[in-house]
Order: sequence, then C-alpha cells, then structure tokens
Amino acid sequence: MTTQHAPVSVLGLGSMGIALARALLRAGVPTTVWNRTSERARPLAGEGARVAPGLEAAVAASDLVIVCLRDHDAVREVLGGLDPSAYEGRVVVNLSSSTPGEGRASAAWAADQGITYLNGAIMVPTMLIGDPEALILYSGNQVAFDRAQDRLRPLAGLTTHLGSDPGQAALYDVAMLEIFFASMTSFLHATAMVTASGITAREFLPFAQQMAALGGTVMEGLAADVDVHQFDGTEDTLEMELAALDHIVHTSDEAGLDGTLARHMRDLVRRAVDAGHGADAFSRVVEMVRHQP
Amino acid sequence: MTTQHAPVSVLGLGSMGIALARALLRAGVPTTVWNRTSERARPLAGEGARVAPGLEAAVAASDLVIVCLRDHDAVREVLGGLDPSAYEGRVVVNLSSSTPGEGRASAAWAADQGITYLNGAIMVPTMLIGDPEALILYSGNQVAFDRAQDRLRPLAGLTTHLGSDPGQAALYDVAMLEIFFASMTSFLHATAMVTASGITAREFLPFAQQMAALGGTVMEGLAADVDVHQFDGTEDTLEMELAALDHIVHTSDEAGLDGTLARHMRDLVRRAVDAGHGADAFSRVVEMVRHQP
Repeated sequence: MTTQHAPVSVLGLGSMGIALARALLRAGVPTTVWNRTSERARPLAGEGARVAPGLEAAVAASDLVIVCLRDHDAVREVLGGLDPSAYEGRVVVNLSSSTPGEGRASAAWAADQGITYLNGAIMVPTMLIGDPEALILYSGNQVAFDRAQDRLRPLAGLTTHLGSDPGQAALYDVAMLEIFFASMTSFLHATAMVTASGITAREFLPFAQQMAALGGTVMEGLAADVDVHQFDGTEDTLEMELAALDHIVHTSDEAGLDGTLARHMRDLVRRAVDAGHGADAFSRVVEMVRHQP
Repeated sequence: MTTQHAPVSVLGLGSMGIALARALLRAGVPTTVWNRTSERARPLAGEGARVAPGLEAAVAASDLVIVCLRDHDAVREVLGGLDPSAYEGRVVVNLSSSTPGEGRASAAWAADQGITYLNGAIMVPTMLIGDPEALILYSGNQVAFDRAQDRLRPLAGLTTHLGSDPGQAALYDVAMLEIFFASMTSFLHATAMVTASGITAREFLPFAQQMAALGGTVMEGLAADVDVHQFDGTEDTLEMELAALDHIVHTSDEAGLDGTLARHMRDLVRRAVDAGHGADAFSRVVEMVRHQP
C-alpha cells in the first residue's frame, strides 16, 4: 500500500467538504466522512465513503484528518469535543477560511492541545476541487505538510506550502480574494454604466477583459515600485489619473449609480496629489492605503 | 499619392499630442503641429513636422485636424477661436478625454458650428501610441470616421468605431478605466496587507496575477447574468462571499490600512443579503449598484 492510499477523514460536509471527500474517493484514497447532521453524509456513502458513526470514530479512522467548517470558531468547538489524546499520531489539516490572525490563533490553540496541525486556504470554487489547475495554499507546521502532502494533492493540482507562519495561507487568501472581488465589482459597476446607455454587458465584455489582462501586466511594475519604495519617473502621472477618475465618478453619478468604488479610488489619488505627489506613478497609492502621505 | 499620405494637423502638444504626431510622422503622413506655447513643437520640427505659425495656419494645412488637449472645455475654447468657415471641408477628431455627457455636448456644439466632428478615446498610455495592439475608440459621425480612418490607423492598430452615439467612446473609456484602476488599487491594497507581514510585493505578484486572469474569465458569466437579468443558481453564494469579504476587512483593519475598498464591496454584498438575495450569485451586485434591491 503506497502512502497515497493511507486513509483520510473529512470532518464537515458543507458543499466544500463534500467536494473534498469526492476528490479523495476519486483518487482511491480510503475516506471516512463525518458531519454534525449525518444526512449530509448519505450520498457519499453510495460513492464509497465510510460514514463514521461519531466524531471519535471519524478521527480514529485515519492519521490524516481534514476539517472544513464554516469558520475557525466552529473548528475549535468540534475538535475540542474530544480529549486531546484522540489526535495522537495524527495530522489535522484545517481548510476552513479565516483571517491570518484567526489562523495563527487556531495553530496556537492546537499546539496547546498537542495536536499536529496545519492551516490551509482553498483558492477555488467547489466545482474546481480536484482540478490540476486548482490552488490550495498551506502554511505553518512543515512536518505536518510533509506527512500529509501526498494525500492533499488529489484536492488541488497546485498544492503549495508557503512558509512557517500559520497565518500566511489566510493572508494570501484574503489578499488574492480582494483582487478577485475588485475585478468582479468594478466589472459590474462598469457594466451598470454601459447598460444605462443601452449597450449590453456582452458587447462590453471583450473590452473589459482586455483591461483585466492589462491590469495583470501592470502589476509587475507596481510590485517593483513597492519593493524599492520608488514611485516616480512615469509619463502617466497621478495628476492625469485624477482627471480620469473624476470622469468615472461623474459618469456614474449621471447614470444614478452607486459610485463609491470610483469615488474611493479618486480620493486615494487626490490625497496623493494634495500631498505633493501629483507627478508620481499610481504605485504611490500604496502609501495612501498605509496612511503614509 | 495614396490617401494615407494626405496631410494631418495635430493641435495640442502635451505628452499625448507629441506621441500622436510622432506616430503620424513615422507612418510618412505629412504632419503639421500647433501648440499654444510654441516651444513644445520644437523637437517635432527636427523630426519632419511642419510647425504652424498659428492656429489658423494649422487648421488650413490639412483636411484632417486632430485635437488633443487637457479637456473638452479647452477644445471648444481653442476651436472656437476661429471662424467656423475655417473648418469647411475638414474633419475634426477630438482625442481629449471626457465624460460621455461632455462628448455629446462637444459633438452638439460642433454640429451647431457646422464642423464635421468625431470623438475618440485613447485607451493606451503615450508609450504605446502607434503600437499594433494599441486601442483607440471612436464614436459619433460615421462619415467623419470613414474619411479619417486611414490616417487614424497609424495611431493605434486597434482603431475601432463603436456607433453613432458621440458619447459612446468616452463611455467605454470610463467603464474600461474603472476596471483598470480597480485592478491596480486592489493589487496595491492587497500588497500593503502582505508586505505588513514581511512578504515582498514581488513574492505575492504571481498569485495576484492569477486572480487578475481568473477575474477576466469570471466576467463572462457575470455578463451573461446581467443581460438575462438572472442572478441565481450558483454554489458560490453571496452569503459565502460576505464571510470572505469580512475576512478581508478585518485583515486590513488589523494591519492598520485604509480598508475602504473592501468595506465598500462587503457593504454591497451585505445589502444584497439583507434584501433576501443571500443564495444568489455575485452578479446580483449589479442591482445594488443600480440602487435596485
């Protein structure tokens, strides 16, 4: 029996927990599942999962225990329901989403209990679990990751350990999600502007996608500026960008839309211009976000 | 002599006007330039441009007059300095940035004066003027575009007439720019979060770029939802996304950053959830932006 066929238990069968269990079953991993309300486990039984009669049996069944619940409070409540000795010789991998601070607190709590514990952050929707392009980030206990990684790979082709800080997976998670949400939110606001003039969202789509691609390219220059703390030397100055942002705000207002997004971006740039940085590049905005004019 | 060698005059020699004139000269187009302060024209003279002694001579020199000034007020002030008869037989193309409303107002003003007039919006930085991938959008007077387009192509490989509404080029401009600015702003805020934990912007960059690419893909589904006005039927619900947005806000607050961007996105989603749309997809946010809960 190879290590990838050693057993795994999955605690928590929300839509993400179910997707995780299915990916393990597809990879031939003996999988035990548990949920507080057991009806959620029934469909998985038909797909080859062993349904544990209780939490204790679920943890006892495997030396790798994956837990995916609503939040870290729920995780500590569930895991704390057993005596810490139940986790002896086991690795617990927590894939519930959190802030970096909560991730660090959970790792500290687990250490107190003597539990070998690892935080992870799932960066894809449920439908992409198991995909070769799916990304799950881990951080914290390297030993736990090394022991678990062969059985974590069926969950996501891109299974990545970031470093020793147990909060880092959640930090990347929130930082990446902010970019994703900003992309969707700005697209929907832009779409509200164009549809107000009778243009369909799908007519506008290819133009929007071109901007999304350009944004990804321009991030390279922004990242370099941030790392060397150097924001000058550009033809496209904050002063010019302030005029463009004014146009967005006015267009949103004329269409009667909620223009908070554009207004916030304009205000960041205006603060930079008012602080004497009008000839700087857009990367200067990082200092405004840091309240360091 | 082919039509693409018919002459063009460029009014306004800011950094963008200079880039436009250079692209024309590179394409072998006889180019006359004019600026209110004539020193700006001097370098172009050495590159083959004819420097007009005054506005009247500049307009007289070519049947295609491109104007690129700070804003549309400045354009009307400059063009209005000559008797309308000066523009007889000429096409005036205004590439100064504006809101859609200003674009329509300028077109109406030009029509009043009997000027054959076209609005354009330059969608690339000065350094990309003349590039095969550069995009300049035009809208309004189709006859004017048809007469001018051979001489507009040297400015941008992607020279596109959108339709008869003279405000449409500016509308696409502001809508596209909002997506671009949101991409940069969210990247800089996310970068401020990760650098606060000692990670460099360049370490985070590839993860951010993956999100930018994912955003571009997800826009397809959002656009389809908006056009059919159908926001349900998803595994990734607004209720789940609200939890993720809460994590972003808290992480930003813990790092002492300006979290207005994340807070705005969370508030849009929370309004949707409070209005009973918690099981809907993110596309529902377009209705919140429209103040239509």
